[in-house]
Amino acid sequence: MPGLLLLLLSAALSWELRAQAAPSPCLAPAQWEGRWVQYDHSTGRNTRAAVSYDGLNQRLRVLQQHKKHTPCQRYFEFIYLFQSAVLFQIDQKTKECSKLALLQAWDPFDIPDNSTYEDEYTVGGPGDSMEVQEWSDRKPARQHESWVGMYTVKDCYPVQETYTQNASLTTSTRFFDLRLGISDPQVFTPPPTCTLARARPLRHDLC
Amino acid sequence: MPGLLLLLLSAALSWELRAQAAPSPCLAPAQWEGRWVQYDHSTGRNTRAAVSYDGLNQRLRVLQQHKKHTPCQRYFEFIYLFQSAVLFQIDQKTKECSKLALLQAWDPFDIPDNSTYEDEYTVGGPGDSMEVQEWSDRKPARQHESWVGMYTVKDCYPVQETYTQNASLTTSTRFFDLRLGISDPQVFTPPPTCTLARARPLRHDLC
Repeated sequence: MPGLLLLLLSAALSWELRAQAAPSPCLAPAQWEGRWVQYDHSTGRNTRAAVSYDGLNQRLRVLQQHKKHTPCQRYFEFIYLFQSAVLFQIDQKTKECSKLALLQAWDPFDIPDNSTYEDEYTVGGPGDSMEVQEWSDRKPARQHESWVGMYTVKDCYPVQETYTQNASLTTSTRFFDLRLGISDPQVFTPPPTCTLARARPLRHDLC
Repeated sequence: MPGLLLLLLSAALSWELRAQAAPSPCLAPAQWEGRWVQYDHSTGRNTRAAVSYDGLNQRLRVLQQHKKHTPCQRYFEFIYLFQSAVLFQIDQKTKECSKLALLQAWDPFDIPDNSTYEDEYTVGGPGDSMEVQEWSDRKPARQHESWVGMYTVKDCYPVQETYTQNASLTTSTRFFDLRLGISDPQVFTPPPTCTLARARPLRHDLC
């Protein structure tokens, strides 16, 4: 009996240690507005946008931002309505609009329950820093992860996500200037030009 | 005369506005210890290390960190002595040592004076955030930059650097857990096995 008790105690202690070693995912905010920079690993190109994220209603609005003077480049507004499986692509200047089938499944900016805890660290230095946790979808049997997410420890804000969709498409998204909530829900309503929208994507350049 | 005065005033005002619009680079700390993750854009591989950075004496010590169980992989300590143009590569387990010519020029982790101000933003969100500035070596006549650096606004700690050495080699380095100063200057002294070091690099795997 003392042997069994010891075994049970030791099992409980080892479980306790494991539980301490692996924290559980925090709950990321469901609605926010902010900015992101998306880095496409294959082209090396960065795309900047103002973003409204509505996790409650599975909607996303992405307003591409001009940074450099690029005369041939068109800039779009994208409205993703995942519950209706519809994506609107709108030319910011002409308001020309395409209504496209949204084939991707909704994938919120959060840490899924079954994620693997990778690391915790301080970004910045003494007196000017932030605590961040890193999570991934790595599983013991798999060599590589297809998703890595960095979230702040205190309030679970997204900081960076790296996502590999397939062998040739990996994107890293860095999040900035987040404010909680949606100040203007109208941003998810497409403009009137979208009532007569065509179903083909708009070209990204004009020249 | 009033015309000239107006012109001068307007020139002064425009200079003032430009000066306000473009902040000057902050001064990054000269000595620190911390960690980094280096992402190689071509292989998609992340390399983790504990780092001692001595900008005053142009020395760098990089201690590779094991994260996953990789039986064939060797882990090295690198001691870069830029003033002597020497790099020591030391097997962490066997202490086998190579003494190599250091061909790169010293390039400190800081924001050079002639850098281009790209952006300033908040990482994280309300109550759990950090102010960061982005700088690059982009010049008006060039389309792309080969260096982008993110530094904290308050204390100028490095957060991330992306550096393109040539068409096929781009690395992004994220910095963590920085502490100011060098707690043990001995880390820059190679172990005794380096007195008889060979001049060929050590292989990265054993199998």
